Order: sequence, then structure tokens, then C-alpha cells
Amino acid sequence: MRTRLTRHVLVLLLSITIALPISAKAASDPLPSWKEGPTKATIIDFVKRVTDPKSDDFVPPSERIATTDNDGTLWSEQPLYFQGLWALDRIKALAKDHPEWTQQEPYKSAIAGDMKGMMAQGKGPLLKMLMAAHSDITAEEFASSVSDWLAKSHHPKTNMLYTDMVYQPMLELLDYLRANGFKVFIVSGGGIDFLRVFSEERYGVPPEQVVGTTADAKYELRDGIPTIVKEGNITLIDDKGGKPVGIYRHIGRRPIFAAGNSDGDMAMLQYTTMARNADDKTPTLGLIVHHTDAEREFAYDRKSSMGKLDKALDAAAEQKWLVVDMKGDWLKVFPKK
Amino acid sequence: MRTRLTRHVLVLLLSITIALPISAKAASDPLPSWKEGPTKATIIDFVKRVTDPKSDDFVPPSERIATTDNDGTLWSEQPLYFQGLWALDRIKALAKDHPEWTQQEPYKSAIAGDMKGMMAQGKGPLLKMLMAAHSDITAEEFASSVSDWLAKSHHPKTNMLYTDMVYQPMLELLDYLRANGFKVFIVSGGGIDFLRVFSEERYGVPPEQVVGTTADAKYELRDGIPTIVKEGNITLIDDKGGKPVGIYRHIGRRPIFAAGNSDGDMAMLQYTTMARNADDKTPTLGLIVHHTDAEREFAYDRKSSMGKLDKALDAAAEQKWLVVDMKGDWLKVFPKK
Repeated sequence: MRTRLTRHVLVLLLSITIALPISAKAASDPLPSWKEGPTKATIIDFVKRVTDPKSDDFVPPSERIATTDNDGTLWSEQPLYFQGLWALDRIKALAKDHPEWTQQEPYKSAIAGDMKGMMAQGKGPLLKMLMAAHSDITAEEFASSVSDWLAKSHHPKTNMLYTDMVYQPMLELLDYLRANGFKVFIVSGGGIDFLRVFSEERYGVPPEQVVGTTADAKYELRDGIPTIVKEGNITLIDDKGGKPVGIYRHIGRRPIFAAGNSDGDMAMLQYTTMARNADDKTPTLGLIVHHTDAEREFAYDRKSSMGKLDKALDAAAEQKWLVVDMKGDWLKVFPKK
Repeated sequence: MRTRLTRHVLVLLLSITIALPISAKAASDPLPSWKEGPTKATIIDFVKRVTDPKSDDFVPPSERIATTDNDGTLWSEQPLYFQGLWALDRIKALAKDHPEWTQQEPYKSAIAGDMKGMMAQGKGPLLKMLMAAHSDITAEEFASSVSDWLAKSHHPKTNMLYTDMVYQPMLELLDYLRANGFKVFIVSGGGIDFLRVFSEERYGVPPEQVVGTTADAKYELRDGIPTIVKEGNITLIDDKGGKPVGIYRHIGRRPIFAAGNSDGDMAMLQYTTMARNADDKTPTLGLIVHHTDAEREFAYDRKSSMGKLDKALDAAAEQKWLVVDMKGDWLKVFPKK
């Protein structure tokens, strides 16, 4: 009897010893790519407070709304927003049906790969070209075009697939939020339909939780098949003040967490974190990804043409937004390297 | 030993006998207000097929998207869409700040309660007045106005609160779909912001799952408070062909279930149920609530100015949409009577 008991105790102890490192690690480190320190501690403290029913800061699950920007917050945005790179490739592909483009700016420069010449044409003509890449196309054709491009195109500097240039620490953060009952939405200045092609697979964010810049669309029965056709008139520019509007339109309630990386996200961070009245004690967290790592990714802020971070960096101090130092706070940048 | 075993068997049998009527009823009757018959059987068969992993018609939970109209499908819409009744009351309330309205149509008729005179002013002026009721107001003020009105206003015929004029069988259907892994969205011709005031409490549909007719909004810091202000320019008329567009905009994938009650829902039912190509075998169900019960609710279809059901009723036969006979298929109409 004593021998059997001893064996039982031994087996039990052995099980605990084997199980411990795994479960203790999982319980204590939901964010393994975030370096131990005040940034990581602030995130974990916030999540613990809003999910602890005994805390004064407890927030019921239905109100745990998290919103995050995409370009520069979930994946890279240099040397150009990746959607811009897709649009240029699409203009080149469409050019064979538009011989007139070889004589017409900014198409001519775009097709020739002359970025400088293209940019010199000004905002109006550039936007018009951009919309030409995105409209008069069915929803299905558009999704296939983006999906095919993402599967085969490589970043000019890293030579990685674009979908491999997502930030591992942010993937962990989205998982951590979801594991704690948050509903995570992407609120991006990029196109809503572009993002939805990969948001579920790459970020675990289903299409119905993606908000982005939006253009008109129309419905028709085309040869008896229900069809959505994308059109050219923009109905929401989901950037700056457009982000709170997009949140109001799609979500209909105030987030308690928002992440961004540029002045384009400032209004969303204000909308999320600033008190509505003197009695408003809603616990909130605003987070800014600061691109400080020229070696592993890119370093830019106040003077960048993509993802300019200037006013929002000043506001961060005043509003107590958490500024993430990519170089110092992240042990890893991309999942594969 | 034999006695103990016998007792165990007896207790076990007794437990089964006691448990059986309850669990069998719960398992066999998720829709107690629906009369037994082909309509109810069709709904249950559909849900069983798409949720049974062994069925050829199995649909993974992430793709179990259900969309339902509101006016005439989830609650009544006679003698006027309830939002129209709210708008008229609001115009009356705003009139004290607009003395000029007493001399200006259609305001003059509206304030006097002269529906006939008001309707005679034509669509353009009516729409303009409707927008005056909905715009230049903050999101919070708008929500309070609707909420206050719903709490105290009564239907001119039934004298019930409007939120008591929801259909009990449809509430059961929404619960049944959710219990089977469906994500339920409301897709209404009514205003998105009006609906969101009561959709979560009344239908269990959170604001982020409400799609409706939408107007512009702007964001501003008003005395340091992040504020959304509703504006007058409509960006989506979520009716007829606008419903598939609204679904594309907000949900980004095709529903497998859609419910409606009028020609305004026909495009949504087509979009949901019609095959995308020769190989498309997606199991879908389109449902139409047919108002056939003048005694318990209202009876109307092909000639009604609210919720006209004409082309969609013809299409139902061709497309095999399930037409619900309110009088014959529903044991109960409203939760309280």
C-alpha cells in the first residue's frame, strides 16, 4: 500500500513539474515578444483592471471594444503604404487596356516606375488614378486581385511577403485582448475592402470588424448573379476625424482601447480616452507605436510623409497615451525574423 | 447488495422521468410561438443542416451570418414607420425654436397633425423635413431623444409601447439562430442610429451588428469633449439595392439567412439566396413575414404604402423563399398579448 501511494505521489509531483513551466509561462507571459518593463506592465495592468469583476475599473465584456489602426500599427508602411504599391501594380496591369495612359500623367510616370515624376503631379490627379485602380470592378474580382498580389509580391527592401511584415508583438496583443473578452476592430485609413482580404487570416479580425476608407458600391443582378460593383465616389475617408466617424458608423459605441502610430490616429485616441464629462471615469488605454528601429524595421516620426507622428506624439504626453518604443520594447518585430 | 442496486436503478429511472419532459421540450421546441407545421419545420431543418458537422450542408460558425429587416419583420410598421412617428413628434418639439415653420409646408401640416396635408407636399420636402429631425444634433442628444420617446410614447391603435410591438416568434427565431452559432445583424431601411438605441436590449443585437440608412457625421472636440455631430447628407439608403450594399459595407460577407417582409427586402433575399455560379451549393434560407392577421396585428401586402409586398411575393415562389403566414404560423404575435 505504501509503495503504491509513494508511486502515486511521485507521478503526481512529476506531472506538476512537467506542467508547471508551460502553464506558468502561459499565465504570466501573454506577451512573450514584449520586453519586461513599464510598457508591457501598463498593458497588462489595464487588461487586468477592466476584466476583474472586483475592480472599480471593471468593464462588462460587451463594452470591451478595442480599435487599432493597420498601416504602421499592425504592419509596416514604408516606403509607401502597401495598398499604394498594390494600386501601382494594378495600374500597370490595367495599362494594356488603356493605351492612352502612356501619354497621360500621372499614369505615364506610374507605368514607367518613375515615383518622383508621379508624385509631382499633385494630389488630385494621384487620387483619381488611385480610384481608377479600385473602381468599376466587382467585389469578387477586387478581392481576387488583392489576394493574388499578396501571395506573390515582395517588399522592395526586405524581400518579404507583405503579410509577413506584420508585427509579432501586436499579433500577441490582439490575441491577449480577445482572450480577455475584447472585441477587436481594425480602424484604418486604408481601404476597407483591401484589408478584409487578409484581416481574418492574418489578424484574426473578421471582415465585419474591419472599418476603413470606403467608396460607393452598387448592387445589380448580372446575368442572374447577385453582384456588388465597386464605384469611385468616396463616402468615408477613415483617417483623422474620419476615424471617430467610422467608429460611430460601424461600431456605434466608444472603444476603451485604441492603438495607432500617427497623427491620423490622434482623433481616434482622443475619442477613446478623453472624458465625456466630469463624472466620466471609464478606464481607457491609448497606445502609440513609435517607429524607432531603423535596423529591424524603419525609424521615422515627425517628418515622415508616411505615418507622420508629430502632433499625436506631443498629445501623448498630455493625454497619458502609452508610447511604445519599437526598438526598446519589442524583443521581436516580424513573426519570421 | 441487490437492494442497493435496485434503489440505484430506481433513482436513475426517476431522474430520467423527471428530466425528460423538460429537456425533450427544450430540445424539440426552440420556437414555442411558432405553430407546428411546414413553416416551422423548414426553419428547424435549415438550422439543423448547417450546424451538423456530418451534413453536406454544414457551414462553419464564422460564416453563419443572418440578416433581418426591422420594420414589419421584427416589429410593426403601421400606420407609419415608428421612426416617422418619432420624427413628427420631434418636429413638433423643435417648432418652438422655429416660429417660421407655422407658415411653411410641410412643417405647418406636420405640427397641426394634418397627415394628409403633410403627405400632399411631395417626397422632396418631406425628406428635407425628416432630415431636419435627424441632423445638427450630437450622437448622445439623438440617442437620448429616441430613448425618451420610446419610454413614454404609445401606439395610436394598440396603445402599447412601441418596443412592446416586437414579434415574439421573431425574438425566438433570433435566439434560436444565435444559440446555433449564427451572428445576427439587423439590416433596415430605418436609420442606423435610431435602431441602435434599442436593438441590444430589445433584440439582443449589439450596435455593431446594426446596419441602416446612414447620414454623414463629423467629429469635433467641443469644449474639450470628443463629440460626434449628425449631419444631413445621406450616404446610404439601406433599402432595396442599398441592402446588399449595406451588407457589403458593414459585414463584408454573404449571409446564409435573410428575413424581410417587403419589396424593400427583395434585393437582400436575392443576395443571400441566389447561387453565385453553377457550382455554388451554399445552403441558404430566405424568409418573408406576410402580414395576414388583421385581428392580432395588421393585414396588408400588394397595395400598402408601408411595407408593400408585391414583387417579392411573386419572387418568393420562384426562389423558394419561405413565406410566413402571420395568422396561420404564429401562435402569438406580441410578447405581452
